Amino acid sequence: MKACIVAVGSEMLTPFKTDTNSLNITERLNSFGYDVRLKAIVGDDVEELAGLLEPVLAWADLVMITGGLGPTEDDITREAVAKVVGVEMDVDEQIVERLRERFAKRGIKMTDNNRRQAMVPRGARVLENPNGSAPGLWITHGKTDLILLPGPPREMAPMLDAFVREHLAPSAGARGLFRRTLKITGRPESEVDSVAQPVYAPWLKQPVPISTTILASLGQIELHLTASARTAGEAADALDRAVSQLRDALGSSVYSVDGSDLEAVVGELLFERGLTIAVAESCSGGLLASRLTDVPGSSRYFQRGVVCYSNEAKTELLDVPDALLREHGAVSEPVARAMAEGIAARAKTNVGVGITGIAGPGGGTPEKPVGTVVIAVAVNGDTTVRTLKLFGGRAMIKFQSAQAAMNMLRLMLG
Amino acid sequence: MKACIVAVGSEMLTPFKTDTNSLNITERLNSFGYDVRLKAIVGDDVEELAGLLEPVLAWADLVMITGGLGPTEDDITREAVAKVVGVEMDVDEQIVERLRERFAKRGIKMTDNNRRQAMVPRGARVLENPNGSAPGLWITHGKTDLILLPGPPREMAPMLDAFVREHLAPSAGARGLFRRTLKITGRPESEVDSVAQPVYAPWLKQPVPISTTILASLGQIELHLTASARTAGEAADALDRAVSQLRDALGSSVYSVDGSDLEAVVGELLFERGLTIAVAESCSGGLLASRLTDVPGSSRYFQRGVVCYSNEAKTELLDVPDALLREHGAVSEPVARAMAEGIAARAKTNVGVGITGIAGPGGGTPEKPVGTVVIAVAVNGDTTVRTLKLFGGRAMIKFQSAQAAMNMLRLMLG
Repeated sequence: MKACIVAVGSEMLTPFKTDTNSLNITERLNSFGYDVRLKAIVGDDVEELAGLLEPVLAWADLVMITGGLGPTEDDITREAVAKVVGVEMDVDEQIVERLRERFAKRGIKMTDNNRRQAMVPRGARVLENPNGSAPGLWITHGKTDLILLPGPPREMAPMLDAFVREHLAPSAGARGLFRRTLKITGRPESEVDSVAQPVYAPWLKQPVPISTTILASLGQIELHLTASARTAGEAADALDRAVSQLRDALGSSVYSVDGSDLEAVVGELLFERGLTIAVAESCSGGLLASRLTDVPGSSRYFQRGVVCYSNEAKTELLDVPDALLREHGAVSEPVARAMAEGIAARAKTNVGVGITGIAGPGGGTPEKPVGTVVIAVAVNGDTTVRTLKLFGGRAMIKFQSAQAAMNMLRLMLG
Repeated sequence: MKACIVAVGSEMLTPFKTDTNSLNITERLNSFGYDVRLKAIVGDDVEELAGLLEPVLAWADLVMITGGLGPTEDDITREAVAKVVGVEMDVDEQIVERLRERFAKRGIKMTDNNRRQAMVPRGARVLENPNGSAPGLWITHGKTDLILLPGPPREMAPMLDAFVREHLAPSAGARGLFRRTLKITGRPESEVDSVAQPVYAPWLKQPVPISTTILASLGQIELHLTASARTAGEAADALDRAVSQLRDALGSSVYSVDGSDLEAVVGELLFERGLTIAVAESCSGGLLASRLTDVPGSSRYFQRGVVCYSNEAKTELLDVPDALLREHGAVSEPVARAMAEGIAARAKTNVGVGITGIAGPGGGTPEKPVGTVVIAVAVNGDTTVRTLKLFGGRAMIKFQSAQAAMNMLRLMLG
């Protein structure tokens, strides 16, 4: 079944704002077997919205439209849909009454322009909006269902949930799409794909076919598996098998199969093993501490972080010997090791992490260019040290440093 | 003049990915007076792309299409455009030659499917791609120009720049749209709008009209001013006047009129005044240090950060007296003050910041619920302390804490 998602609102045609409702809607439609073939964003103009919708009605089984249902002259979705479907608009007195009550509860007299929100294309069903004044509408035209929902995500999302639960789910006899995500770090995309491709290629021809897409972002690769199945149980069986085959092939570089972030995976490992952690950062500037403490409950294992740019701070807070700094320089394996072991000793934690490097844009030398980062991880006195050559701007180098440090710790604990 | 932007690629119709090129394109087109009336995302299907484009050709002066120009069967943009414009496709031997050279330079033999990238709808002009193999194309059909660019932003952006510089800018005689952004923090959106609205409302009717939109995000409000003018100079005069009127009305809550982030504004103030800073964080978990050190050159003023969750760490690293912690609790004004003054004394900096609070989800009490955050900022021994009640999840409370601390410091230095 084919679906189209339209967002209505001139503000989404500026350089500053775009439609995000469609990601949520796509996920829900996919899981009931709808294939989203077109997403569009159109301004507050009756003719333009109608012009967009007309050819869509020829092929779409479902058209989800968000926005343009408010009380002002700019809110043109109802009118454009009535026009393209070829029906009149009526005032729905029940909606007027509900609006009047809503305003009265807040001690406000309803202004007349709100009657606009009670205009309904003839034959449409009304979808309740528990979090706002504009109701949704459901219009059937030939084989196409048009669903009109308000634009603000906090109004739209619960109405989408209700529509899915009450109407889409019961009538879905066909196959649905079910997804699973593997997260991988520490290997380049091309290497991951060359290992994974022979594993996932045959899945497309299974009785429960699974398609695989690979998405690389900074310091991280995601493999998205999408199974087309008749039931959630059938999909779960096929996806479990697929995930375990990919894990076997990719080994320990897979850090999550349930969507968890690396900081949550590392936090869970620390908590399970009853370990505490302290971190000493130079070039990552506190980002490692901040990511580790993003996890709810991280105070159970996170004890202390220090950000020390200067050599004095490294000596004062981490007991890094002055001689070591002079002999090897601040960005060196001996110093990173001394930082990790020093913070663990000072904070009396099981785990210490030291990160030192050059995040740029200044500060690079021919021997130690921008992007040179040394990471040490000490776990109960056993220390691993790695020197990395990272690319990108300052924020990218900070992110990759924190990512690499957490992954080193994960592998040492795993 | 009316424009339409189309992104081609089935991956952008999944729940995980959306088109972002269009924001950049919109900004460039706006500044030459093009009004973007429709944005669409369509999958890798000749018929569907052609079906979308057909009605667009009736109204659009400019259609920008990104993606679908690669060498594989999935890359259907050239074919769909040729079809809808009604022309044949030819192999451009010059493109083939350039591709062959490109591969040879990398020591790779060109595979045959790359010839697909040399297929050109008859009459099209070729736009060079300095960062990839797929060239862009420019086809004129009636009054409509269709510009085809590759999808990856690092290939697309420089080609867009070149097209704008070489073709759009010279031919633009009409009015262009020019923008300016004010960033504001520390006041609620409704208050900002009630102060700003009487100021900006009359601007729409000026000879150089300026429209204003207000965008609120976490801990920050942006006012976007868009002037429609014949020249950049004319726009700059009107926008300068507008910005200064808004600054007068909104006062010190405006922290940036040039797009700078709060951390950059604060960093500039510290650097200008020759001040150094150290920060002591509890509930913000290192985020303040991380944001301050996101700014290139921050090592000139940022000396030290510590993240101390435990009372012991507060005593050991910041000399917060044990008695103070016992008497007032870790989340209290006296402790925040002792943290700020303690870190400044220890690190021998001019400025010290202390943040202590409850980021949640656990740890709240009836007297000090989740979201209670106390911030102290000490500048050369003069200390300001504020207690905030923040809302939202853990990450939102961390962000707002860091934002409020930087804003307090800005106002003390301003």
